[in-house]
Amino acid sequence: MTRGVVVTQIPRAAAADIAVLQEAGVATVHEAQARLGLMQSRIRPVWPGAMVAGSAVTVLVPPADNWMLHVAVEQCRAGDILVVAPTSPCEDGYFGELLATSLQVRGVRALIIDAGCRDVRALQAMGFPVWSRAISAQGTVKATLGSVNVPVVCAGQAVQPGDVIVADDDGVVVVPHAQAARVAAASRERLAKEARTRAALAEGQLGLDYYDMRDTLKARGLRYVERADEI
Amino acid sequence: MTRGVVVTQIPRAAAADIAVLQEAGVATVHEAQARLGLMQSRIRPVWPGAMVAGSAVTVLVPPADNWMLHVAVEQCRAGDILVVAPTSPCEDGYFGELLATSLQVRGVRALIIDAGCRDVRALQAMGFPVWSRAISAQGTVKATLGSVNVPVVCAGQAVQPGDVIVADDDGVVVVPHAQAARVAAASRERLAKEARTRAALAEGQLGLDYYDMRDTLKARGLRYVERADEI
Amino acid sequence: MTRGVVVTQIPRAAAADIAVLQEAGVATVHEAQARLGLMQSRIRPVWPGAMVAGSAVTVLVPPADNWMLHVAVEQCRAGDILVVAPTSPCEDGYFGELLATSLQVRGVRALIIDAGCRDVRALQAMGFPVWSRAISAQGTVKATLGSVNVPVVCAGQAVQPGDVIVADDDGVVVVPHAQAARVAAASRERLAKEARTRAALAEGQLGLDYYDMRDTLKARGLRYVERADEI
Amino acid sequence: MTRGVVVTQIPRAAAADIAVLQEAGVATVHEAQARLGLMQSRIRPVWPGAMVAGSAVTVLVPPADNWMLHVAVEQCRAGDILVVAPTSPCEDGYFGELLATSLQVRGVRALIIDAGCRDVRALQAMGFPVWSRAISAQGTVKATLGSVNVPVVCAGQAVQPGDVIVADDDGVVVVPHAQAARVAAASRERLAKEARTRAALAEGQLGLDYYDMRDTLKARGLRYVERADEI
Amino acid sequence: MTRGVVVTQIPRAAAADIAVLQEAGVATVHEAQARLGLMQSRIRPVWPGAMVAGSAVTVLVPPADNWMLHVAVEQCRAGDILVVAPTSPCEDGYFGELLATSLQVRGVRALIIDAGCRDVRALQAMGFPVWSRAISAQGTVKATLGSVNVPVVCAGQAVQPGDVIVADDDGVVVVPHAQAARVAAASRERLAKEARTRAALAEGQLGLDYYDMRDTLKARGLRYVERADEI
Amino acid sequence: MTRGVVVTQIPRAAAADIAVLQEAGVATVHEAQARLGLMQSRIRPVWPGAMVAGSAVTVLVPPADNWMLHVAVEQCRAGDILVVAPTSPCEDGYFGELLATSLQVRGVRALIIDAGCRDVRALQAMGFPVWSRAISAQGTVKATLGSVNVPVVCAGQAVQPGDVIVADDDGVVVVPHAQAARVAAASRERLAKEARTRAALAEGQLGLDYYDMRDTLKARGLRYVERADEI
Repeated sequence: MTRGVVVTQIPRAAAADIAVLQEAGVATVHEAQARLGLMQSRIRPVWPGAMVAGSAVTVLVPPADNWMLHVAVEQCRAGDILVVAPTSPCEDGYFGELLATSLQVRGVRALIIDAGCRDVRALQAMGFPVWSRAISAQGTVKATLGSVNVPVVCAGQAVQPGDVIVADDDGVVVVPHAQAARVAAASRERLAKEARTRAALAEGQLGLDYYDMRDTLKARGLRYVERADEI
Repeated sequence: MTRGVVVTQIPRAAAADIAVLQEAGVATVHEAQARLGLMQSRIRPVWPGAMVAGSAVTVLVPPADNWMLHVAVEQCRAGDILVVAPTSPCEDGYFGELLATSLQVRGVRALIIDAGCRDVRALQAMGFPVWSRAISAQGTVKATLGSVNVPVVCAGQAVQPGDVIVADDDGVVVVPHAQAARVAAASRERLAKEARTRAALAEGQLGLDYYDMRDTLKARGLRYVERADEI
Repeated sequence: MTRGVVVTQIPRAAAADIAVLQEAGVATVHEAQARLGLMQSRIRPVWPGAMVAGSAVTVLVPPADNWMLHVAVEQCRAGDILVVAPTSPCEDGYFGELLATSLQVRGVRALIIDAGCRDVRALQAMGFPVWSRAISAQGTVKATLGSVNVPVVCAGQAVQPGDVIVADDDGVVVVPHAQAARVAAASRERLAKEARTRAALAEGQLGLDYYDMRDTLKARGLRYVERADEI
Repeated sequence: MTRGVVVTQIPRAAAADIAVLQEAGVATVHEAQARLGLMQSRIRPVWPGAMVAGSAVTVLVPPADNWMLHVAVEQCRAGDILVVAPTSPCEDGYFGELLATSLQVRGVRALIIDAGCRDVRALQAMGFPVWSRAISAQGTVKATLGSVNVPVVCAGQAVQPGDVIVADDDGVVVVPHAQAARVAAASRERLAKEARTRAALAEGQLGLDYYDMRDTLKARGLRYVERADEI
Repeated sequence: MTRGVVVTQIPRAAAADIAVLQEAGVATVHEAQARLGLMQSRIRPVWPGAMVAGSAVTVLVPPADNWMLHVAVEQCRAGDILVVAPTSPCEDGYFGELLATSLQVRGVRALIIDAGCRDVRALQAMGFPVWSRAISAQGTVKATLGSVNVPVVCAGQAVQPGDVIVADDDGVVVVPHAQAARVAAASRERLAKEARTRAALAEGQLGLDYYDMRDTLKARGLRYVERADEI
Repeated sequence: MTRGVVVTQIPRAAAADIAVLQEAGVATVHEAQARLGLMQSRIRPVWPGAMVAGSAVTVLVPPADNWMLHVAVEQCRAGDILVVAPTSPCEDGYFGELLATSLQVRGVRALIIDAGCRDVRALQAMGFPVWSRAISAQGTVKATLGSVNVPVVCAGQAVQPGDVIVADDDGVVVVPHAQAARVAAASRERLAKEARTRAALAEGQLGLDYYDMRDTLKARGLRYVERADEI
C-alpha cells in the first residue's frame, strides 16, 4: 500500500477465461479455487440481478474522500471493474450517477466498493451494477491522495490490479489473474458435475446415497433413534 | 442439545391449523401468542413475497459444516420446513440450489437458517423460499457431526421438532406444536377483529377514539399545548 | 426532550419548496446544504421506489411502546411525514397496516422510524412508504407516555417539528424548516449543474479535465508510473 | 415461554457438582459437554476476575421493563444465579446497585442478563458479579408482566430453571441440571488430562508430536516447501 | 448544524450545580430527568474509574479530519468538556496524547467523542479521561472545516454548547444547561431516597414489599404455581 | 492464498529495527508509514498493557478449526508473532492456555487472531499477550487443512510472512519487512518531533499557533462570531 501513485500498466486475464468465470458465477468460481477469495457478505448489490466479471482496476481511497475515483476513471478500459477500498472504515457515498456515466462511457462493467454508494435508482435505470457495503447519500470531499492500481484489501480480500472480479447476487469473488485460466477450467468442470448432480437429485435420489455418505456417517457414530427419549 | 443423533419420529400439528397460521401471517400469529416466539430480525427472506407455514425438522450443525443437511433431507416429509441452527455463530453458505432441489422434490416448503445461503437467484427461479441471516457464497465442509430433530435455538428462539414455523416478509415466528390449534383459533379471531378496525380507521375514525384512549392518556398526565414555549 | 406533552401548532415550510426538494431527491438536497442533515444509513425503505418530501410531525416514543403513535395521528395534516424516535435503541415493530390506514386517510405521505416496522407487504400494496431501521413483527405495548412535536434525534439527526423530510432509495435527509426555501433554490441550481456535467461526461470528457483537477493533483505529489516495480 | 407466571419450585443440581463445575471453568466445562451450551460472546463480565457457578432462576422480561426482576428476587436461594432474557432485543439498564443489594443479601452469586446493566463501579465494589450484553444507565419501567422460572433463551442458549450456570472471564456456559453430575465428572477428567498436556508442552514437546498429528496431516495432503515460489 | 463557524461565547451552568451532578453520577442524573439524555452505550471510557461533569464545548468534525479540534482547544476554559461529533460515522483516532496535553493545561476535564481515540495508555498515565466509540490508532487529516460551539448530535443525543455533560463508568448523559439547577436538585433528592432504599434492602426487605408491588402484580394477573406442569 | 502448504523459510527484519518499532508503538509507527497498515479496531488486547513487536508467522485457518495452529507452532522462532486469519468470519476460541504454553516455550512474543481466544485469565497470569476479535470459550475441531506462512488478510490488512507486527493498547499495525528499517527510522524521528511538540503544548502554546494554522483556516473561510444568532 502506497499513497500518491498511479500505475498505468496492469496485467489482464484473457477475455475468454473471464467470460467463463462470469457464466459460472460466484458460488461455483469460489468452490473451484478451494473456497477462497470471497469478499465479506456485507458487500451487496445495490440492485439485484446483475452478473459480471472483469479485470480489477484498484483504487485506494482515504475515508470520505473520492478524489482518486476521478483519477481512476482514466485508467479503465472496456471490460474492467473498479475496486475501491478505503484506508479506514467508511460508509459514505463515494459514488453516484455522474461517476457511473463516466465509467459506462468507457465500457467499465461494474463498481465494487467497501464503502457507500448513492443514486441507486439512477444506477439501476442506467443498468450500471454496483456492489457496496452501504447505500448512503453522504457526499465526500476531494482533499487527500490515495493510489490507483496498487494492491488493496477490499472487504477482507487482497486484490491485485488485474485480478478477475466475479460478482452476482451471491456476492463478489476475486480470482488472481495468473490463475484465471486454471480456475475457469475448473469452474467449467464443476458446472458439468453440478448439472449431473442436479438431475439425479431432481429425480429424487438422496444426497446421502448420491454422495455415498452413509458409511462414513455411521463410522463417525451417527445414531438413528425413533423418539427423543431414546437419546 | 446432543451431537450425533437423528430422531426419526416427530410430532406434527394438524394440516388445517397450519393452513390457518399461514394465512394469518407472522405479525398476527405472533400477537395471538402473547407477542412471543418471533425470531430475531436478522433473519430475512432471500427473495420477497413468499408466505409459508409448516412443521419444523430441526438441524443442529457445526459452524461451516453442512454435512447434517444431507442427513436431514431424508427425514423431511411434504409440508415440512427445515430449521437450521449452527452451534456457534456462522455466516457461511450452507445451502444452495442442489439441496433446494432435493427438498423441493420431497415437498418441503422452505428453509430457515441462522447462517448463510447462496444461489439466491436460482432459488427464486425455482420458487423455493429461504429465510437466512446472510447471503454468502462461502462453501462449507462435511467433517463433523451435528444432529437432526433435537431441540435447537434458532435466531433467539427455541424450536422443538414438529413446532409450526410461520414465515413471510415480516420475519419468522415459532408456534409450539401442542399449541397450534389454540393459536390458530386466536389468530382467526384476531384477523376478524383487525378487519373491523381497518374498516373503522379507513373511514377516518381516530385510533384515539376507536380504542378509547383519551381518558387513560389524560389520567397519565398527557398535556396538550399550542406552542413549544408553553411546555 | 420532554415527556408527556403534545404540541399542537408547528411551523411548516411552503408547499412549493417542499415540492422542489422532493424532486431534487436526497443526494442533491444533502449536498445543497453543505453535506449535512443525512440520517444514518441503517434507515432503509421497507419497499423500493418511493420518493417523498413533507413536514415532520415528530414523536418521541419509549422503547417497545407505540402508544404515542396513536396520539400523533391526530396531529397530522395532509402533506406531513411522521418521524418517530425511541428514547433508547429498539427494533420492535411499532407500526403496521392499521396505523398506515389512519395516516393515509389523513394524507400523510410517509413514516420515518428509527425502530422496526411490520406488515411490509400490505404497506407496499397500499402504497404507503416507510423508512425504518428494521423489519420486525415484534408487537409493542401501550403503557408509557412519550411526546408529540418536541425536538427529537432520529437516526443521528436532530429533527424539529415542521422540518422538511426528504426520503428516497438513497436514504433520508432533514432540512430545517427555516432553510427550506434557501435549500430548495440551491438544490435547483445543483440539478441544473449536474445536468450539464452529466452531458459532458456522457460525451466522454474525463472528470479530471471537466473539473480541472490535473494541476492540483500534481501539486499534491501524485505520480504516474508504468509498472508497480517503479514505485 | 408463557407470560404472567411464577414457578416456585425448581430442581437444583447437587452443590458438590456445582462446585466442581465452578472450579473447572467455562472453557473446560463447555468442552466436557461436546462443545455445546456456550452463550454468545456478546455477554461479557462488567468487571473482570469473577468465577461462579450456581442454579439458574430464570426471568423472562419485556423490553425496557424490569418489573419481573423484583418478583424474581423472592424466588432466589443462596447459591442461585439470576438469568434474565428480554422478549425482544434490548440494551437498557435493567439492573443496578439496589437490586444487587437484594440479591447479595439472599446469597445469590451472580446475574446473567442479555440486556444492559448499570452502577458497574458499585457492583465491583460490592463484589457482585454480572455478565451482560451492554453497560447502560438507561432506566426501565414497571408496566408489563413477564415470567419467572419458565424456560428462556438467553444469548443464544436455552436455559431451563435449575440448570447450572458457569461463568468466568471466558463467558457463560449452561449445563442442563440433569447432566450436572456427568459433566462435572467429565470436567474433572479433562482438567487432569490438560494438566498432563500442559506439563509436556511446557517441556518443549510439540503438539504435532504429543497429539500424534503428523501422519494424519500428511495423509490429508499437507506439504512442506522451503520457499513461497515452490508452492 | 453549520460549517465553518466558531461561536466564542457560550452559556455555562453554575459550578455548584455541576458539582452536584458529578457526584450524583450518570445513572442517577439520567433518572432525575425522566430517563432522557443518555448517549448510546457504544460510548465507553477508554480507561475505567473516572467520574466527571463539565460544560460542553461542542465540535462538529468531518469524518477522518481532526483540524477543528485544534480550533476548539482555544475556546475551552477550566471545567469544560470537549464533545466531538463527526458529520458521518467514523471510528478513526482523532485524539491522542498531544491534544490531551493541550486540554489538560487549560483545565479541561474530559473528552467525549463519537469516533476513535488513541494513545490510551498515555491518557491513563496522564489521568485525562476520554469516552469514545472506538480505540483506534488510525490518524486523521487536517483539510476540511467543521464548526465549534454549534448544536451537534453526539451518540444519539442532541448537545447544545454549554450543556452539562456527566460521565462515568456507566456512560455519558447530557443535561441542558438551563435545567442544570433543577436536575441537580432532583438528583440530590434521588440520592437520599436511594440511600434509604439501599438500607432497607440490605436489611433483607424485599422490593416487592418495600415498593408495595404485590397488589398491582396480582391485579395484572400474575399467577404463582408450584410446578411447571401447572402452567 | 493456498491451502495445504507450509512454507518453512521466511524473511525476518533486523532485530534492532523491530526493537525501535516496538518502542515507538502502534500510533507512531502507523503515522510513520503514511497512516497505512492498521488492523481494524475490532482487534483488541485480551488483557491490557502489553507492548510487542515481532516477525509474523502467518496461519490461514478454516472457520472453527484450529488444526493448523499446531502445525504453525513448529515454524516459530524466538521473537516471532503468530498471525491467524480464518478463511471466513468466525469468533470461536481457537487459542488458549495450552497453545500459549507451547508458544511461550519457543520464545514467541504474542498472538494476533481475527477470531476468538479463551483462557484469558490464564494468559494474563502467564504474561502471554493476545490481540483478538472476540473472547470466546467455543472450542474448535481439527479436520480441515489451511496453510502456514502464506500471505493472509487479517482484520483488513494484508500480511506477508515475516512482516513486522507492532501491537499495544491502541491496536495492531503491520510493517512490510522490506520497509522495516525505513519505518523504524521515520518512527524515531517522529518520536523526537512529538517530544518537542509535547513540551511546547505542555507550556500552554496553542496548537493553532504551534502548527501555524490560523491563516490557512481563515483562508478556508473559518469565521468567529460571539453568539449563535450571529451565524
